[in-house]
Amino acid sequence: MESGFRSTDWQQLTFAVVGMGLIGGSYAKALRRLGVKKIIGVDTDGKVLRQAQEQAVIDEALCGAGPGLQAADVVICSVYPAATLDFVKSAVPFLKSDVLITDATGIKGSLPEDVQRLLTGRMEFIAGHPMAGRQGSGFGMSQAEIFDGANYIVVPAAFNSSGAIEWVSSFAGAIGCGQVVQVDAVEHDRIIAYTSNLPHALAVALINSASYNENTKYFIAGSFRDGTRVADINPYLWSDLFLANRENVLQELAAFSQQLERWREALTAADAQALQEMMREAAIKRKDLY
Amino acid sequence: MESGFRSTDWQQLTFAVVGMGLIGGSYAKALRRLGVKKIIGVDTDGKVLRQAQEQAVIDEALCGAGPGLQAADVVICSVYPAATLDFVKSAVPFLKSDVLITDATGIKGSLPEDVQRLLTGRMEFIAGHPMAGRQGSGFGMSQAEIFDGANYIVVPAAFNSSGAIEWVSSFAGAIGCGQVVQVDAVEHDRIIAYTSNLPHALAVALINSASYNENTKYFIAGSFRDGTRVADINPYLWSDLFLANRENVLQELAAFSQQLERWREALTAADAQALQEMMREAAIKRKDLY
Repeated sequence: MESGFRSTDWQQLTFAVVGMGLIGGSYAKALRRLGVKKIIGVDTDGKVLRQAQEQAVIDEALCGAGPGLQAADVVICSVYPAATLDFVKSAVPFLKSDVLITDATGIKGSLPEDVQRLLTGRMEFIAGHPMAGRQGSGFGMSQAEIFDGANYIVVPAAFNSSGAIEWVSSFAGAIGCGQVVQVDAVEHDRIIAYTSNLPHALAVALINSASYNENTKYFIAGSFRDGTRVADINPYLWSDLFLANRENVLQELAAFSQQLERWREALTAADAQALQEMMREAAIKRKDLY
Repeated sequence: MESGFRSTDWQQLTFAVVGMGLIGGSYAKALRRLGVKKIIGVDTDGKVLRQAQEQAVIDEALCGAGPGLQAADVVICSVYPAATLDFVKSAVPFLKSDVLITDATGIKGSLPEDVQRLLTGRMEFIAGHPMAGRQGSGFGMSQAEIFDGANYIVVPAAFNSSGAIEWVSSFAGAIGCGQVVQVDAVEHDRIIAYTSNLPHALAVALINSASYNENTKYFIAGSFRDGTRVADINPYLWSDLFLANRENVLQELAAFSQQLERWREALTAADAQALQEMMREAAIKRKDLY
């Protein structure tokens, strides 16, 4: 068994979770379920910290960077992309010299390099992205189960040690995730634009259609329910994510619009074969996914 | 307690379910759960009839219209739109003089009038549309539970008796449906284009995007899973439904494209406020739905 932050002896490790929102709260609950040594919750919102402490989700509460972070072997940043940088900058003086920092940010860009640049000594940042979430936002909506079976993307940068990459991969499995995959930041952002950003945009667009009215709810079935499930998301966080990835998302919107154009053409031409072909293609792909 | 087909004494009624597919099979299973007197399954596929009989989902099997239909107080047509007309035409000579016929067709058009025109005596057709379904197709995918809590649309025509309207509304509740609403056929088709046809088209378009590849599955989260759930549908049935409703669906595609255009503009202009506004609007509407 290794010592220090590369240990996977979870019961011996102290974690700091920065941001007690939907994802951060879920991390804390998953860590509790995993039985780690100690969970430090960090948030600027004292109310949410009290709530997390009262529910025994965290052992200690910090309203920001401070000496209390010294105990953390691992820091998980679950805050807005820009806030990760700010937090790490203020936290560095208090952190263990071999601390491992990871994140859950839905868009990477230059974040890994930017964070690592702030670190000193043997501190290391390794980017991660649990493909987990649910509608809503905030600590009240958090739950350990969001990780169960979810994909977990590890996004190593050139500076990362193999130990850190292995640690975060094991960690993903330990909190319940299924498939763990590795891609670089550029590829991550490109793929995520399709598999996450686009479906969120479509859900928002579907429910925002001019055809929606107060009677819509009496006529919806599963297709509408599922197609709009993620329309209820945190507008501030997601506008950040969308803007940080906007070139990729614009490309995905264009690729998607080409498919809508296929629909428009097939319907205009009353082309049953073209419609069936699109649906057969989709059915095969969907079956391949699950 | 009334006698004849307007009775809601379910245990005394014999039902014929025409089409043992996903929806017809689910009706038969829901009727079994309801404890009706007898269930006659009708299908051209002898294998599926045997299967339904072996599983005790139906009491009697008919491979088409014939004297066996005489016992039916109620006939539920769960076949392709065009097949409903064909079946009723061939069945009329065998049906009870006061039989009630209903359907589950996802598009109405002139179907109610067309079917009623074939009927004689006190036979009555009342159109219905359970907003229930699931991925896949065929008897093997059927289950009584698809009706539980689902909306049920009753589509009365000018010729319908209040007794028939009331009966089908009670019946919807009896098999587990939640909200039962009434609209005429024109309105039904217009609304369904938005609440059902469009989400299915979007799901197919999302998974058919040029960005999809064999690695997509490792990067998907709930938003992609939910957004593509109904991409796996029966291509033949659904091309019929889409074509029969194509004017309405084309309008919905146009209305949806306007929303995508809002996304494109907001992203191009890097307009955080516009993005947040769209998401706030969507979140409010989504919360109002459920």
